[in-house]
Amino acid sequence: MLIVMQSSATSGEIDQVVAAIREHGLTPHVLPGATRTAIGLTGNTAAVDAGHFEVLPGVAEAIRVTKPYKLASREMHRDDTIIPMPMATIGPKTFTVVAGPCSVESEKLIFDTAEFLLSKGVRMLRAGAFKPRTSPYSFQGMGLEGLQILKRVREKTGIGIVTELMDTEYAEAVEEATDIIQIGTRNMQNFSLLKRVGKCRKPVLLKRGMSATLEEWLMAAEYVMAGGNYQVILCERGVRTFNDHSRNTLDLSVIPPAKTLCHLPIVVDPSHGTGKRAYVPAMALASLAAGADGLMIEVHPDPDHAASDGQQTLNFDQTAKLLDQMKALAPVLGRQM
Amino acid sequence: MLIVMQSSATSGEIDQVVAAIREHGLTPHVLPGATRTAIGLTGNTAAVDAGHFEVLPGVAEAIRVTKPYKLASREMHRDDTIIPMPMATIGPKTFTVVAGPCSVESEKLIFDTAEFLLSKGVRMLRAGAFKPRTSPYSFQGMGLEGLQILKRVREKTGIGIVTELMDTEYAEAVEEATDIIQIGTRNMQNFSLLKRVGKCRKPVLLKRGMSATLEEWLMAAEYVMAGGNYQVILCERGVRTFNDHSRNTLDLSVIPPAKTLCHLPIVVDPSHGTGKRAYVPAMALASLAAGADGLMIEVHPDPDHAASDGQQTLNFDQTAKLLDQMKALAPVLGRQM
Amino acid sequence: MLIVMQSSATSGEIDQVVAAIREHGLTPHVLPGATRTAIGLTGNTAAVDAGHFEVLPGVAEAIRVTKPYKLASREMHRDDTIIPMPMATIGPKTFTVVAGPCSVESEKLIFDTAEFLLSKGVRMLRAGAFKPRTSPYSFQGMGLEGLQILKRVREKTGIGIVTELMDTEYAEAVEEATDIIQIGTRNMQNFSLLKRVGKCRKPVLLKRGMSATLEEWLMAAEYVMAGGNYQVILCERGVRTFNDHSRNTLDLSVIPPAKTLCHLPIVVDPSHGTGKRAYVPAMALASLAAGADGLMIEVHPDPDHAASDGQQTLNFDQTAKLLDQMKALAPVLGRQM
Amino acid sequence: MLIVMQSSATSGEIDQVVAAIREHGLTPHVLPGATRTAIGLTGNTAAVDAGHFEVLPGVAEAIRVTKPYKLASREMHRDDTIIPMPMATIGPKTFTVVAGPCSVESEKLIFDTAEFLLSKGVRMLRAGAFKPRTSPYSFQGMGLEGLQILKRVREKTGIGIVTELMDTEYAEAVEEATDIIQIGTRNMQNFSLLKRVGKCRKPVLLKRGMSATLEEWLMAAEYVMAGGNYQVILCERGVRTFNDHSRNTLDLSVIPPAKTLCHLPIVVDPSHGTGKRAYVPAMALASLAAGADGLMIEVHPDPDHAASDGQQTLNFDQTAKLLDQMKALAPVLGRQM
Repeated sequence: MLIVMQSSATSGEIDQVVAAIREHGLTPHVLPGATRTAIGLTGNTAAVDAGHFEVLPGVAEAIRVTKPYKLASREMHRDDTIIPMPMATIGPKTFTVVAGPCSVESEKLIFDTAEFLLSKGVRMLRAGAFKPRTSPYSFQGMGLEGLQILKRVREKTGIGIVTELMDTEYAEAVEEATDIIQIGTRNMQNFSLLKRVGKCRKPVLLKRGMSATLEEWLMAAEYVMAGGNYQVILCERGVRTFNDHSRNTLDLSVIPPAKTLCHLPIVVDPSHGTGKRAYVPAMALASLAAGADGLMIEVHPDPDHAASDGQQTLNFDQTAKLLDQMKALAPVLGRQM
Repeated sequence: MLIVMQSSATSGEIDQVVAAIREHGLTPHVLPGATRTAIGLTGNTAAVDAGHFEVLPGVAEAIRVTKPYKLASREMHRDDTIIPMPMATIGPKTFTVVAGPCSVESEKLIFDTAEFLLSKGVRMLRAGAFKPRTSPYSFQGMGLEGLQILKRVREKTGIGIVTELMDTEYAEAVEEATDIIQIGTRNMQNFSLLKRVGKCRKPVLLKRGMSATLEEWLMAAEYVMAGGNYQVILCERGVRTFNDHSRNTLDLSVIPPAKTLCHLPIVVDPSHGTGKRAYVPAMALASLAAGADGLMIEVHPDPDHAASDGQQTLNFDQTAKLLDQMKALAPVLGRQM
Repeated sequence: MLIVMQSSATSGEIDQVVAAIREHGLTPHVLPGATRTAIGLTGNTAAVDAGHFEVLPGVAEAIRVTKPYKLASREMHRDDTIIPMPMATIGPKTFTVVAGPCSVESEKLIFDTAEFLLSKGVRMLRAGAFKPRTSPYSFQGMGLEGLQILKRVREKTGIGIVTELMDTEYAEAVEEATDIIQIGTRNMQNFSLLKRVGKCRKPVLLKRGMSATLEEWLMAAEYVMAGGNYQVILCERGVRTFNDHSRNTLDLSVIPPAKTLCHLPIVVDPSHGTGKRAYVPAMALASLAAGADGLMIEVHPDPDHAASDGQQTLNFDQTAKLLDQMKALAPVLGRQM
Repeated sequence: MLIVMQSSATSGEIDQVVAAIREHGLTPHVLPGATRTAIGLTGNTAAVDAGHFEVLPGVAEAIRVTKPYKLASREMHRDDTIIPMPMATIGPKTFTVVAGPCSVESEKLIFDTAEFLLSKGVRMLRAGAFKPRTSPYSFQGMGLEGLQILKRVREKTGIGIVTELMDTEYAEAVEEATDIIQIGTRNMQNFSLLKRVGKCRKPVLLKRGMSATLEEWLMAAEYVMAGGNYQVILCERGVRTFNDHSRNTLDLSVIPPAKTLCHLPIVVDPSHGTGKRAYVPAMALASLAAGADGLMIEVHPDPDHAASDGQQTLNFDQTAKLLDQMKALAPVLGRQM
């Protein structure tokens, strides 16, 4: 259920509604908007009469929401969510590029990549300290030592950091080291992990599961938001189909319906989506044109010697060229880069 | 096998190679290029020794092609194929829009749509006289009468026509009435029909099958080309996946690999691809950015009263707005519109 | 719409209802049942009032059918359809095996295979004279000569024949040569071909399209039945998914819903379904246990030298062993073999 | 790498090989077989020369294994793995049924179901104490209290227990309460969880991920086995495809290739696979015929009032009928029930 306050409602009236919701054993989520505040209710709302809330002072109306996701739904939160961070802002007016190597291999790699990215105006770096690998015998990442490297490079260069959390055990360590906590494809429905990052105070980048429907993806976002963390960024990274022309099938067509049903920003990862370096630039430009709010790409000074995923990684020259193309395109599409 | 001639080869030398190929029971396909001519061989080339041809005067080299498609392969024909038509040219420097109603419903509808499109600079109209319908009880199209309408509107307005051929029986009638012969999704592997349009002298727009791999799609093009008709335009129109957020999953990610492996132009149909009007513009812009050579969209003056597919059809205002956006974008991407 | 006659209705009363249906511009389909006759109506029934028919003598009730398929629907035809042929009967009490080589390669091959099959109690032989091949350069079948071979072997041995029709042009020739006309996967939505076999007087084996939903498959059956040929046999042969452990994903799970929604018999083709000889027996047994009415398998005296599809073909010994296993299993499942 | 010992090798010779493996920084896995012992090596074996081991006394040969999975591979372990438990044995000669309600709702429910199952000869009960639910607002299971109920029912009735572990945090509690630890579909690539159950001493039932290839599934099993727990049971439960005739597409066709490539037992869950009660019996029988080693089905005394998944759950009468059918079928297929 969603309670929409009158635009003239006072904060005292809002507090009174919040208290009434709690009395019914439900959880209130105060959602301030441009002109008025709405209050989302979660819990078992089926048994509650909307009339109880509509009579309270300051309430404009109480609406039953029919989607299984509520906090993620655009019905509940009409305006696009904007994620402000120290180094960048993700939202409808900007196009934010996040780039970097698949995994933290050494401090030099991360530092050099950060310097390169900053010199090109890219202010968010991605790199994995914990790596989910299909094989137990593959390199599993540098772990806590990798997190330390990310922290030091952030301090030295000021670049923003995105890194993956795979395990509730390391939630605190990852939250401290990063600006955005990434939840990987294979963990999109690891509900224990989603609940844990719902308690974090850093934005969560939620990769779409390998065969997740849009509704399942938004329900995963709902798990994070129901825990109190409303800063969720969706990340499309390719789904599994019969196609064999690329590693996965990058599903840009999910962007318009995601934007229609949900207020959260969405970024695209064409590196995992295509799995092939040569296809990344075309899909990056298409993401921008399709309405994405940002891009996450794999960049490495020497992709052919990267510890993982080299075949889908751009080198610095290729990255610089792609950035130039995107910078030419963005203003035509009403986006700042 | 592909025989590459020296750039200085004379037409007499080419004729001699052609004759030698025929002597081996194989079919030669002369493929003139920018700087030199190549000659493709089809038939059972496995048993033939490349050495037989390499010793002929004017021959630079004979190359065994490993892909199952030969004429469609970029190995055989390095330059992008350009399809020149009276009203438009489809190729790497242009972005060609084909638009119109799902089906020919009346002469007035086709005439009004043609007038509107021409006023906006769109010079190709699509409309179905024969309609492949899932149900035998649905409207099956106006048939030959519909073809007559298309011919009259072409004569009156000069607009180019694209219409579907479903049956070898009507091949001549459709070829006469149209500028591009469309082969529908459900007939992508109707090999009898593919062989028949291989004998036509009009370009063929080959829609991708509902679950066709890129290789199967190129093999279908190969069927047309093996018949002697080299003017094939690929059309991506969405594939079938687990996704339920749209009618099909528009697979823009097929464009870069298709361009890498094949020299044929590719256009995108976001109307069938998404199945929903509101999602068409974003996917149209993304197609342009992804490297497509053109667009095919459903346009109708009154979509809500269209005989078929209204829910995915743009009205004139929506079309005009989208065309403006594409015209702003195209030059940034090196395309003329 | 479906008009159910009283069990006591006379043939004169039935004729009167048929005439009334024709007067409304609709097509009647008389469907005799075990205890009473029903009459299906096709055409645009939306505008017709059921009351017109309910008042006629002998009518029990007139029911609006909500599925898009009508003649194929179990709502219209409660009893399982039984397909009687000279050599075998396909229906709910039997388990009918159809076996033979992928393609007609020679008269000796067909004759030897027929002799072997008959010696093992298998009375239906399959072999393709016209072959739908992905590549235009592959063997396309022996064509009309292959049909002559099939006819001669049928005359000599008495075995029943199943062969594929790919093109309306050869409909008469195939109908004459065969006991069951096969429509291939790639032609499941070749609506011209479906309409043509709707005029044939031989049963039609309709292979499921590569990515056809159950509803689309039943609608394809409906095309055949709407033409007046009610003898349709569904054939599951694997669908396309992300799976790479076999050529296609044999979808045995479609059998129970197909049986629930539709009265037509269903057979399974595990040879194309798995694409691998070693997996055929297990899937054949599973088909029987899952409720299929029959099996279609590829058998060849020397699979490794077959002209096509050898890797998924059983030799005579393997076939004999599988038949023994099925004969042991069938009675436990209430089926005669 | 796999080191195959001579059949006459002594335990001292085996110990010597194990020590030599450790010296090279690799991990040995001793795999006793019917006639001889093999020793699997995991870790970075690429750099190690097989000759080092072949010269040791008692060694027959050292084989490089090319599959990415090693311990799960039939190349490494030729005989079928048999999982002995107090109440049942899962392996190639038996067909083991595991049944019970989706979730632990009350002690009475679990006790009544256990009594019913035991009376029908079913000796393994499944029920979830921790439930992975798509929505954060759905019933999440009784948690630790549910585990206590399962323990008490096991003590009272002697029935074996299967229950899901969702989170490393509860690994010890689940291991203590259950005979088989279930890893759910959504956690098939939760690598932290897989590593944790690799340390457990109870068998692990590993459900196939929603869109996992066979190789990915076996690699997930490899994660568990690499931790030292070789008792893994694969569970097919339906994959995600374009099909809409059932909740998922139950992929019985994965059984023969899984048996070919891997020595682990495989059971089938037709309840989640079909999502519809009426389709469960046919798919259960087909699983048995396809070569599965067991079945996991949802059973509840009153499915229409179950806390979750009622629409796919059999009641006691339906279960009893299905068990009778399976008991008639099993001996024909060489299985004990």
